[in-house]
This record gives sequence, structure tokens and C-alpha cells, in this order.
Amino acid sequence: MTAYDDLMAYQRQTEALAQISGRLGWDQETMMPRGAAAQRGEEMAAMAAILHARRTDPRVGDWLEAAKPQDEVARAQIREIRRSFERASKVPEALATKLAQRTSEAQGHWAAARADEDWDAFAPVLEEIVSLKREEGAALAGGGDIYDAMLADYEPGTTAAEIAAIFDAMRPRLVALRAAILDQPQPAGLSGSFPAGKQMKLTRHLARVFGYDMGRGRVDKAVHPFSSGSGADVRITTRTSEEDPFNCIYSTIHEVGHAAYEQGIDPAYALTPLGQGVSMGVHESQSRIYENQLGRSRAFTGWLFDQMTGMFGDIGVASPDAFYAAVNRVQNGYIRTEADEVQYNLHIMLRFDLERALMAGDLDVSDLQTAWNDRFAADFGYAVDKPSNGVLQDVHWSVGLFGYFPTYSLGNVYAGCLNRALRTALPDLDAQLAQGVLENATGWLRVNLQRHGGLYAPREIIEKASGIAPAEAPLLDYLEAKFGALYTL
Amino acid sequence: MTAYDDLMAYQRQTEALAQISGRLGWDQETMMPRGAAAQRGEEMAAMAAILHARRTDPRVGDWLEAAKPQDEVARAQIREIRRSFERASKVPEALATKLAQRTSEAQGHWAAARADEDWDAFAPVLEEIVSLKREEGAALAGGGDIYDAMLADYEPGTTAAEIAAIFDAMRPRLVALRAAILDQPQPAGLSGSFPAGKQMKLTRHLARVFGYDMGRGRVDKAVHPFSSGSGADVRITTRTSEEDPFNCIYSTIHEVGHAAYEQGIDPAYALTPLGQGVSMGVHESQSRIYENQLGRSRAFTGWLFDQMTGMFGDIGVASPDAFYAAVNRVQNGYIRTEADEVQYNLHIMLRFDLERALMAGDLDVSDLQTAWNDRFAADFGYAVDKPSNGVLQDVHWSVGLFGYFPTYSLGNVYAGCLNRALRTALPDLDAQLAQGVLENATGWLRVNLQRHGGLYAPREIIEKASGIAPAEAPLLDYLEAKFGALYTL
Repeated sequence: MTAYDDLMAYQRQTEALAQISGRLGWDQETMMPRGAAAQRGEEMAAMAAILHARRTDPRVGDWLEAAKPQDEVARAQIREIRRSFERASKVPEALATKLAQRTSEAQGHWAAARADEDWDAFAPVLEEIVSLKREEGAALAGGGDIYDAMLADYEPGTTAAEIAAIFDAMRPRLVALRAAILDQPQPAGLSGSFPAGKQMKLTRHLARVFGYDMGRGRVDKAVHPFSSGSGADVRITTRTSEEDPFNCIYSTIHEVGHAAYEQGIDPAYALTPLGQGVSMGVHESQSRIYENQLGRSRAFTGWLFDQMTGMFGDIGVASPDAFYAAVNRVQNGYIRTEADEVQYNLHIMLRFDLERALMAGDLDVSDLQTAWNDRFAADFGYAVDKPSNGVLQDVHWSVGLFGYFPTYSLGNVYAGCLNRALRTALPDLDAQLAQGVLENATGWLRVNLQRHGGLYAPREIIEKASGIAPAEAPLLDYLEAKFGALYTL
Repeated sequence: MTAYDDLMAYQRQTEALAQISGRLGWDQETMMPRGAAAQRGEEMAAMAAILHARRTDPRVGDWLEAAKPQDEVARAQIREIRRSFERASKVPEALATKLAQRTSEAQGHWAAARADEDWDAFAPVLEEIVSLKREEGAALAGGGDIYDAMLADYEPGTTAAEIAAIFDAMRPRLVALRAAILDQPQPAGLSGSFPAGKQMKLTRHLARVFGYDMGRGRVDKAVHPFSSGSGADVRITTRTSEEDPFNCIYSTIHEVGHAAYEQGIDPAYALTPLGQGVSMGVHESQSRIYENQLGRSRAFTGWLFDQMTGMFGDIGVASPDAFYAAVNRVQNGYIRTEADEVQYNLHIMLRFDLERALMAGDLDVSDLQTAWNDRFAADFGYAVDKPSNGVLQDVHWSVGLFGYFPTYSLGNVYAGCLNRALRTALPDLDAQLAQGVLENATGWLRVNLQRHGGLYAPREIIEKASGIAPAEAPLLDYLEAKFGALYTL
């Protein structure tokens, strides 16, 4: 046994335990009896302690020192293990414990403040989180940029400056596109009867159509849709709204994108650091291209129209074209998670700029609500009416997720690049989508991106798969063409 | 912090991890996608390794040495931790690993041999298991009786000689009762339409009626009914057969007995060694008294008859008396798990005597099938027709469970003792059962037995609750009276 072999055997057990921890998270959102919450908290804490101890075990440092990786895969494994080891070792244990404690409490304060529309009650709580996160960021950055150090947790190898360059180029074109669209008449939405049971039947069918392997996964209902697990056990959740069947359908297709990425990774990487999606941004590129560039295309929605009328009868729109317009309606709204393809990224850029300023110390929490509302009015043209529609709408900051928001839009940018390459590789893709045939599209993504798991760095895999360095142009060209036609701009 | 405090804090994490391990087992039988089996195997092995390492950690030995327990509860905690620590330390790790490996393989060989009706294919496999288990038993016994050492895993503080004394007194009376019953005409069984969905609805209602707290548990379908977990998360499974609704109903009531025991334990013991049922026998006493002495009583079945005719319409028997007779039919059969109250214990005694002889070296595996068939013919009066109805019917021996079988009948014996005390304490119990009111019966069991968890040793808690040392007479008196009336003997 070489040091590398020892390290990998040890790491394999750690990965198996991390999978268990993830499964508990799934259980908590889907199956757990409500009275079990406190006990589950202790169980999760015990697992977290075990995982932390393993990831910072001094033997890992010794093995990393002694390991002589012999090929590209082994070098990538070492790179990932080293990143996790160094990250865990850099943050003082007292700070890590305090952060875990405070963010866990802050989440409750956030939920209460949001329900009460009381920003002032939450501001001092967030103040402490921001201060602790800046301390953590400084420990991680070791003199470098604090926000870059945070980004490395979610999108390693990408700097805030690179993201800002992309976002700054996107913003004016998106603001203009949005304004032009909202000057036009709105298409009709759906109306009809959409029983939850039928929605779930249709959604499971759609999951299979998009290549989700039910033999290595399952679909359940939960309050928030999510995908969970890696390797041979990747589960997704969705939700149903009897008024809006798109909620269920597109949540499922989105999560299937995440899950297909995990299911598509080379099984040789299972239970190793390479056996998971490489970053949040690349993960989001898969969920978004499944949901939007494929799932909301004219060709695919033509097929979906037939499925839906077959399942629900009269759905309130009479033709595939009207259905396509209903799927892609652009409407005013405050809430990020409900936003359409055009406006979504504006929500993200707002958060990115604000959280970057918070971490740099250029913005105080006491000024955050005003800054939020000013920026929202500038980009969207109307005022935030209450905190739950503004600065209190997302849970992320309360639980210390700084550096996470931009990966959503990075995912859209990556999806734009991938979509262009995919369309070039499969010139008759629309004819296939119009038949509900996704095999070639998802197969192309599997072969060119998904199967590599964590082998290549995020920017590297996007460039390998799409042929260009990540850039905003393909996404913006796609959006302007699609919505220009839909709204005859 | 005293040594005792340190030990308990450490142990609390271990118990939390053990709960997680149990939840994974539940998931495997209810929710896990079939393609995830191999990965799950690795995940479970990683958890087992963590748990083994914690249970044998030298610090536990040091703490046990230094701890000065100050009260009865603390002394019981120490007693349980010491038992687990010493047990784990006595078995050489190489032997433990080999046993885990071989029994895991043997289970597959057993299933194949049973399907093929091929005892000769399984005999050599079982031979190795028996040899390894005798080796393990010798390590555990340290010069004492091997089988007693094995019993201590399931029924600590009870010897094989004590069990044999009870069983030897039971056998002739049960053989005689069985023979007398089977000389009489048989009552009719049920007939009708019993859709699975309605069975599940009824069974969830029955679970609540028997005091199962759905806020700290849930009911799902699985191939084999079981109860899983302790404290605030105790889940049960059941199954449905459209021909035989009793399968679902009495499986559920049985598992609710197990689950109510776990749910009834003093919450102060949660995530400590006292926070679980104290032994398999005491556990089985709860499942059996719920299922049989309460659930199959004339009074309760009168109420159940109304529930069933309300749910299913015509069920093929027209009166509560005929229904009671159908619930309690005694029929010939080879299979332990399908046996009625009268014959069940005969199946167990057969296994107890054979496995005790195997462990003592008085019986060779090569002679096991013949010994089984001879004993079956002696007690039941007809010949075993094929191995799957005889020596190959149970999984237990293939996975190394020796010393486990007798706890099923011990549970029945304990239930007999408890039932006598319960009937004395609640003289109008039948009037309550006839209304479907179980609160006082289950409340009596909770107060007198369940809430104590692992505080008292098995024989001790039975004696405290029932007022007598465990003995067979109350069970036999109950069976003879009940079935004597049913079959007018």
C-alpha cells in the first residue's frame, strides 16, 4: 500500500459517511416525523463532528505529503482532498463552532423576522453573521481577497473579478430586454384542473424522459424541490400547486438536471472526491440547460402541450404556440425563485454586488435594506413593497452562505455556452425535442461534461465541453433571440 | 466534568450514530432505490467501522475505570456501557471481520438453497458459520457456557438452563392442547374484498388506537414488517395481502407493540444506553401482548369486527363470535412466522434445542436436517415435506443469530405474566377493549414496564411489573382457557 492508496481508502470511508449525512438531510425534508426534529439535530451534529475530525485528521496531512499521484485522475483526487484538508485546517475550531451555532440560530430569527416583516429585528443578527464570516474569510484568504476565498467553497478557481466582468456586461442588456418585453401585451396563462396526483404522474414520466434513472433514485414531494446524493442513490423532490402545474413540472426538470449530473458521473469515481459535481455553478448549468434551453424550448413545449392536454384535458390555451408563450411569460415580481429566464439574473447580480460590498466592509448591514431597495428600483423600475419581498426574501445570508448566489447566474452563463455547442453538435435537436426525445441531448452532456465529475476545474470543464471560455454572450444572444421572437420586439 | 460525564457525553454521540445506522436500515427496506444496494453496503460498513471503533476506544475503558456513578440510573448506564465495551473487546478483530464477511455471504447462499430446496448446498456453508460462532462464543464465555454467552447478546442475565426449565414445562401441555384442538371441527375463515389501500387506512387507525404516536413515527409498507429506531423517531412497517387482511392488521399491532415500548421510554434516557428496550425477550413481550392478549381477545375483536365490516362490507363471517373464531384459527402448518398462539412456541422450542446442541458440539450440521424433521414429526404429528418448510425456512442461523430464537417464546412467557397482572389491575379491561379503548392497558404497560427502558435487567423488570418471577404457568393457563372455550375442549 502506497501513501496514496492509504489516503484513498481512508477518503472512501469519509465519502461514504458524507453520503449518509446527505441521506439524513433528504429524510428530514421528506419522511421524518415532525416530533423527531430535536433528536435529529443531535444525530446530524454527531455525524458532522465525525466528518470534521476525519477531514482534519493529521494522517491526511501526512498522506498528502507522501502521496505520489501517478496520473491525471490521481492528481485531481489529491487536489480535491488537499483543498478540503487545508480549508478545514485554516479555520480555528472555536470560530467554526461559533459560526455553526450562530447561523443555526440566525435561520430561526430570519424566518420570524420575515413572517413579521421586521427588518430591524433581523439586522443585528445578520450583523454578527457578517462579522463572523469576514473573520472566517480572512482566515481562509490568508491576506488575499476575502470574497474570493468564500467563492472557492462553491466555485473553486473563479474570482469575484471574473464574475463581475461577466455580470457587468450582462446587466445593461438584460435591463433593456426586460423593459422592452414588459412594454408588450402579455400572453394568457394556463387555466383548468390540475390534480396533484396527475401532476406527480406526469412529472415522474418527464423525469424518465429526461434520462433520470429511477433504479438509482426516486421522486418525492417536499416543501422545497432539491436533489440529494451522489453515485447510485440520487434522489429528487418536487412540489405541486393545483393552480400552477408549471411549478411541479419545471421544478422536476430542474432537479433532474442536477441529479442527471450526479448519475452521469463515471462510476469509477463513486465514493471518491471526484464522484460529485465539481462546483455549484457547473451543477446549476446542468439544472438550467435541462429546465430552460431544453425544457422551455419551442420544440419541447410542443410535445409537452400534447402530454398536458392528454393528461388534464382543457388547459386554457388552445395551441402549442400559445402554450409556449404561457411557459415563457415574463411578468413583474419581487421573488428570485419565481423569476423567469430574463429577470432571474438581475436578482442575482443585485445580491452579488451587495454581499461583495458587505464582505469588503464597504457596506454596513445597517444600510443593506436601503441599498437593496435602491438597486431593485433601478433595475426593475418599481419599489419593493415589504421586506419579505426584498432584503428578507432569501435564507442564504442568515445561514452564512456568502459567495453562493453568483453561482446561480454562473450556471446560466455556462448553460448558454453549453447550449451553443450542443446545438452545433446536434443540428436536428429541435426535431428530436418535438418528439419528446432527449437521449441525444442528455447523452451529449453526459459524455462531454457530466461523466468527468470533479476531474476538471469548473472553468476548465465548461471550456472543454463548449469550446469557449465561460462568457456571457451565448446566453444573452439566446435570450434576446428567444424573447425577441416571443414578444415580437 | 467527571469521568462519568465525559463517558456519557461520548456515549451520547455513539448512540446518535447508532440511531443513524438504524435509520439507514429502515431506508434500505422501504425507500432505497434497488440500484443503490452495493453503495449502501459500503456506507453501512463505514458506519459499522466508526461504531466499532468508538465502542472499543481505550478511553471508554479508562472512563469506566474512573467513573463513580452516584445513583441507580448512573449505575445502570455504566453496566450497559461496560457490557458493550467488554463484549467488543473480547472478540479478536480478525474473527469479528471474518464472521461479518461469512455471514453476509451465507445469507445469499441460504436464500439460493431455500429457493432450490437444496439442503446439501447450504450445509457446508452453515458448518463454517457454526464453527466460527462456536469460536466467538468461546471467546465471549471465557471458560463458561458458550450458549449462555450468546444469549447475553439478546437476553442478558438469563441462562439456557433457566429457559430450558420453562420450555420443558411448556412443551407437553402445548403438544396436548394442539392435538386436542386439531381433533375438533375448524371454524370458517374470512372471504371478501380487501383492497390494499383500505387495509393501510384501517391499519394506521389501529396503530393510533393502540397508542402509537404518529408525531414520532410513521407507517410504511415493506416486505417484512419491522420496527426501527428509538426515542423520538420510531418507525414501523407492515405489509398487505389482498387475500388475508389479518396479515396486515396483526403485523401492524405486533410492530406497534415494539414501537410503543421504544416510544414509551422516559425521554430523559434518549440517546443513552438506557434509551432502548432492555432485551429481545422483553421487547417481544410487548409486541405479543399487544398482538395476542389484547388484539386477539374476544372483547377487542368484537370492536374490530365492526371496524372491518364498516370498511370492507361483507367479510364472509356474520357475527363477532364467528369473527373471533376466524382470528384465532389453529391450523396445521410448517412455517413459524405463520403459526398461531398455540403452535408458535413449539416451533421455537425445536430451534432452541437444536441450536443449543449445535453450539455444545452435541449435534453436527450434517445431522441437523434429520434432527429437525424427527423433532417436527414428534411435536406436530406429520412429516416435513421439503427443506423450505423445514430446516431452511428461517434466515437466522445463516446470519449467525444463535441464542436469538428463544427470546421469541420468552416474550410470550413474559406476556403471559404481564397479562395476568394487567387483568388484575384493570378488572373492567374487557369492557374497554370492546369499545376499542386501549389507553388504560397500554398506559399500564408504559408505567409499569416501558418507561424504564434499560434501567432494570430483563427478568427484574418482568418481575417488578407482573409481581412474579418469569414462569410459563400464566401463559399456559391463558392459552388453555382461551382455546378450550373456542374449541369447546
